[in-house]
Amino acid sequence: MLNGWLITFEGPEGGGKSTQVQRLAAYLRSMNLPCTLLREPGGTPIGDRIRQILLDPTLREMTQRTEILLYAASRAQLVEERILPALKRGDVVLCDRFVDSSLVYQGYAPEWDLDEVKAINRIATGGLRPHRTYLLDLPVDESERRLKKRGKLADRIEQKGQGYHERVREGFLRLAAADPQRYVVVDATDSEDRVFERIRADLAAFLGIEEKEVDR
Amino acid sequence: MLNGWLITFEGPEGGGKSTQVQRLAAYLRSMNLPCTLLREPGGTPIGDRIRQILLDPTLREMTQRTEILLYAASRAQLVEERILPALKRGDVVLCDRFVDSSLVYQGYAPEWDLDEVKAINRIATGGLRPHRTYLLDLPVDESERRLKKRGKLADRIEQKGQGYHERVREGFLRLAAADPQRYVVVDATDSEDRVFERIRADLAAFLGIEEKEVDR
Ligand SMILES: Nc1ncnc2c1ncn2[C@@H]1O[C@H](COP(=O)(O)OP(=O)(O)O)[C@@H](O)[C@H]1O
Ligand SMILES: Nc1ncnc2c1ncn2[C@@H]1O[C@H](COP(=O)(O)OP(=O)(O)O)[C@@H](O)[C@H]1O
Ligand SMILES: [Mg+2]
Ligand SMILES: [Mg+2]
Repeated sequence: MLNGWLITFEGPEGGGKSTQVQRLAAYLRSMNLPCTLLREPGGTPIGDRIRQILLDPTLREMTQRTEILLYAASRAQLVEERILPALKRGDVVLCDRFVDSSLVYQGYAPEWDLDEVKAINRIATGGLRPHRTYLLDLPVDESERRLKKRGKLADRIEQKGQGYHERVREGFLRLAAADPQRYVVVDATDSEDRVFERIRADLAAFLGIEEKEVDR
Repeated sequence: MLNGWLITFEGPEGGGKSTQVQRLAAYLRSMNLPCTLLREPGGTPIGDRIRQILLDPTLREMTQRTEILLYAASRAQLVEERILPALKRGDVVLCDRFVDSSLVYQGYAPEWDLDEVKAINRIATGGLRPHRTYLLDLPVDESERRLKKRGKLADRIEQKGQGYHERVREGFLRLAAADPQRYVVVDATDSEDRVFERIRADLAAFLGIEEKEVDR
């Protein structure tokens, strides 16, 4: 029996996923709700080893299928080692990227066979799907502006061009449109505080959190 | 157009695959046939990085699905980076283990869903199948005797028990029985020279090599 909730955060780099996941975890803990924070790729010792291969900019010869399978391998480990035990304990699991990032970055954006990416990921996750997903949506130029400001070194994914990143944004928006029950699209150009309040309020309602306990 | 031949070698550890692949390569070169030698997992820089994770005995928490996906990732890279270019050149590609090892070690022996392993590997290889496969068949106790003699350190796979290894042998024999057109089962308890002669003669006939040129 899985009593917990799997909440995922998707969207382009720089949208504020990591920022918001941290703030939401603090909020949930302040409400005495046990939660588990995870990120992809990685999140486990084996996943971190796989992540090193994936993000190594010297391994340029990596084929599309190898990349898809490596993300899936990291995810399979994360699901079984971390996510399922946390859901069994009843935790709220906040996951910084999940399957949808693979559908977009390895499938939709490079115009690869999406059914192939879906089939592999269905197996990797054993069919587990998020209960709710927040898409932190951001125009490509704003994403680039934020990453430059942060002085982040380009990894292999970030070396791709503008058109690719436009397709990334479009891919996420399409996934959200196709699954409106699960997806909440958040305008990530808003201030950090407003983005947080938007997600917090939705998540509180979704989880049925009694709001009276806190002052706001 | 693929003008070459993909020849794979399967069977338990200690059966003599690596030994025979080397000897066959020397034979093919002496006949002026270009050939490419590969081994799994690994065979490419990315595959070797994946191999390190797979064979690391400290990563005991690796799940079955992670293992299946990592072998498939290494294989996808090998197919596209090494095997397909070699087949396009017209080489005889000798591959020390291939998909069937995954079917047996990750599927049949641990009693995992074989269709799952097949589906992932069909994607990983893009459907490429060997033209001929030599199964170097060996009883489990003889395999252990040879490995001990060689003083080989136990890796994660080799730490499994006797029953597992019996299923490995059985799994390969079943694959061979199911595909007699492709498979040649070789009694690997024979001397190295007799095993070599058996495979060499079959391969020469299979490739249509004119034997008169050499003395034997
Ligand atoms: N709403 C926001 N407005 C402006 N900058 C933001 C906002 N949210 C995050 N940032 C900044 O943008 C950068 C990327 O944020 P981060 O949380 O790492 O995004 P992601 O994890 O989605 O890549 C960081 O420098 C962060 O401080
Ligand atoms: N036909 C044979 N008879 C006896 N020993 C053999 C034979 N073939 C190989 N060996 C020895 O068995 C060990 C395993 O051989 P190897 O070629 O590494 O097998 P594999 O690659 O199938 O694990 C080596 O020590 C090798 O010298
Ligand atoms: Mg982040
Ligand atoms: Mg060997």
